[in-house]
Amino acid sequence: MGEVIDAIRTRRSIRKYKQDPIPQEKLDRILEAALYSPSGIGKQSPIIVCVQNKELRDRIEKMNSDILVSVGRNGDNPFFGAPVVIVVLADRKVPTHVEDGSIVCSNIMLAAYEEGLGTCWINRAKEEFDSEEGKQILKELGIEGDYRGVGHVVIGYADCELPNPAPRKEGRIHYVK
Amino acid sequence: MGEVIDAIRTRRSIRKYKQDPIPQEKLDRILEAALYSPSGIGKQSPIIVCVQNKELRDRIEKMNSDILVSVGRNGDNPFFGAPVVIVVLADRKVPTHVEDGSIVCSNIMLAAYEEGLGTCWINRAKEEFDSEEGKQILKELGIEGDYRGVGHVVIGYADCELPNPAPRKEGRIHYVK
Repeated sequence: MGEVIDAIRTRRSIRKYKQDPIPQEKLDRILEAALYSPSGIGKQSPIIVCVQNKELRDRIEKMNSDILVSVGRNGDNPFFGAPVVIVVLADRKVPTHVEDGSIVCSNIMLAAYEEGLGTCWINRAKEEFDSEEGKQILKELGIEGDYRGVGHVVIGYADCELPNPAPRKEGRIHYVK
Repeated sequence: MGEVIDAIRTRRSIRKYKQDPIPQEKLDRILEAALYSPSGIGKQSPIIVCVQNKELRDRIEKMNSDILVSVGRNGDNPFFGAPVVIVVLADRKVPTHVEDGSIVCSNIMLAAYEEGLGTCWINRAKEEFDSEEGKQILKELGIEGDYRGVGHVVIGYADCELPNPAPRKEGRIHYVK
């Protein structure tokens, strides 16, 4: 089995992180690779906001938590203590922006796994960056345009063993020969 | 650079295919790996329909072409002559079904690249499988449930050199330190 297929099979979501900083060159390799993700009609609709700043990381986590609480869910610790959060947004004018942004998140997770880092996709980026506070954050960062949050990838060194995968559901592949 | 990051950076969409059959063991490795893609709350919402049957492949391509023509676009050869089409659908009841299905498509493309195969994501699976004809096809295949088409990955041996990537747009990564 090749290393790519092995990574796809063995990468798992990590829900407990060390506080050790992530070397910048690792983040650069991961995010620059993700820019080469395919996108609808090659429009490269996604952008990546890599939040290493603790104040902004905590502010976004608080927004995420508040959204969870507002729908009656547990809002404790939605970023699982990961030191860095990567937000992927995409240009809402492009019809495939959710698909495009999802692929970028996925490739960030795979590339990070190869770099020895744990990740977990966290939802609710749409709700965050559709809110006035989210729009204000983008404005403060100098990001202009109609961007929709697609997902967060929280990232850091895992503070746990690689979890075993849940059993795969039966009957998910249909061959028509 | 590791092989995963190298694959993410160098894989490209292929738009010209040989007619050589794809060994079944390659398809098995690719699709079984893709089942391990992350999914929202671990629901494993996507399913994969791998169409090696020429009659059904051509029927789906005709539907795709008709959709293109209906919106005033060129409907010639939308599957680029690839011998096999993989359709990814996902359970519409799961809120993250588009994201989940997109990751499966992306991982199929990366795994296929490692196996020496070319791929291209083709849109309009939603329109196809929301139509009566699409629903009838699923029924004929014995697939029950409210599945939405997320994407097609056409696959085969490339009949061209690996294309060079278009230049990446500037300013797509924002670091907040």
